[in-house]
Amino acid sequence: MSIVYNEIGKIETQWHTKDNIPIQPTGAKDSRARIIINKEYALGLDSLDGFSHAIILYHLHKVEGFSLMLTPFLDDKEHGVFSTRSPKRPNPIGLSVVKIVSVAHNVVVIENADMLNGSIVLDIKPYVPHFDHPHEEFRLGWLEGKSENAKTKRSDNRFS
Amino acid sequence: MSIVYNEIGKIETQWHTKDNIPIQPTGAKDSRARIIINKEYALGLDSLDGFSHAIILYHLHKVEGFSLMLTPFLDDKEHGVFSTRSPKRPNPIGLSVVKIVSVAHNVVVIENADMLNGSIVLDIKPYVPHFDHPHEEFRLGWLEGKSENAKTKRSDNRFS
Repeated sequence: MSIVYNEIGKIETQWHTKDNIPIQPTGAKDSRARIIINKEYALGLDSLDGFSHAIILYHLHKVEGFSLMLTPFLDDKEHGVFSTRSPKRPNPIGLSVVKIVSVAHNVVVIENADMLNGSIVLDIKPYVPHFDHPHEEFRLGWLEGKSENAKTKRSDNRFS
Repeated sequence: MSIVYNEIGKIETQWHTKDNIPIQPTGAKDSRARIIINKEYALGLDSLDGFSHAIILYHLHKVEGFSLMLTPFLDDKEHGVFSTRSPKRPNPIGLSVVKIVSVAHNVVVIENADMLNGSIVLDIKPYVPHFDHPHEEFRLGWLEGKSENAKTKRSDNRFS
């Protein structure tokens, strides 16, 4: 079964190539970017300026094909794609929790932008710790002790 | 521009109608469910069992149409859809952070399932606090002081 979505906007970032860019928002602290929402959806941004953070879902528009097993940026072993945040996924949907700087008309200015320039916006949701951050013990599998490295690790060409 | 995704699996939950179901995972603590991944994608689940939590992205298959302004379950005032978690979105993508109970073959057993039965899986990502939970001050806009109510609030028919 196929599911068809519409572009609701685009993201303008400083990251124009797939290599040497932050692999997560935590590695993009000073990266300011603009989300330009198509005019016909702009009304949907009402009240968003009250929130400090948002979840951006976007289409990874430069990804071609996918791998079920792959070696992610933060490890040197292969893992199933659904245990990684690799872009080369069956459905290439990116998810970034970003800081909201301002919302005006159809433009949302954000910080912590790790998206490739031109990424296609699918959805914006307010980030709500009570909904999105379980207050439980975490196990991080192959990422145990490695997830902090996303602060400095940059992408390379492996998924191109 | 249209974006086409493929169903990678389905979610079997105890929630068979759109009304009177939990509106967030925090209201579904005892709700165990099964994610059945289509056989051709099952290899992608490798290593997922090392993680305690996952982000499930799914198609809200029973939602028809959308509203840019709407009154969400947790308020009595209208807000822009992108400042709410309402299902009636331009692209009806659901996002739930759930607890992983087990992973075997093509079946992932989860807890905290707030999805409608039959929801279509688009993606599974490991939940990684360093990536997904900013260590910053939060502002919650119209949800300030209300987000805790998702523990007990149930859905009604307003988005049917």
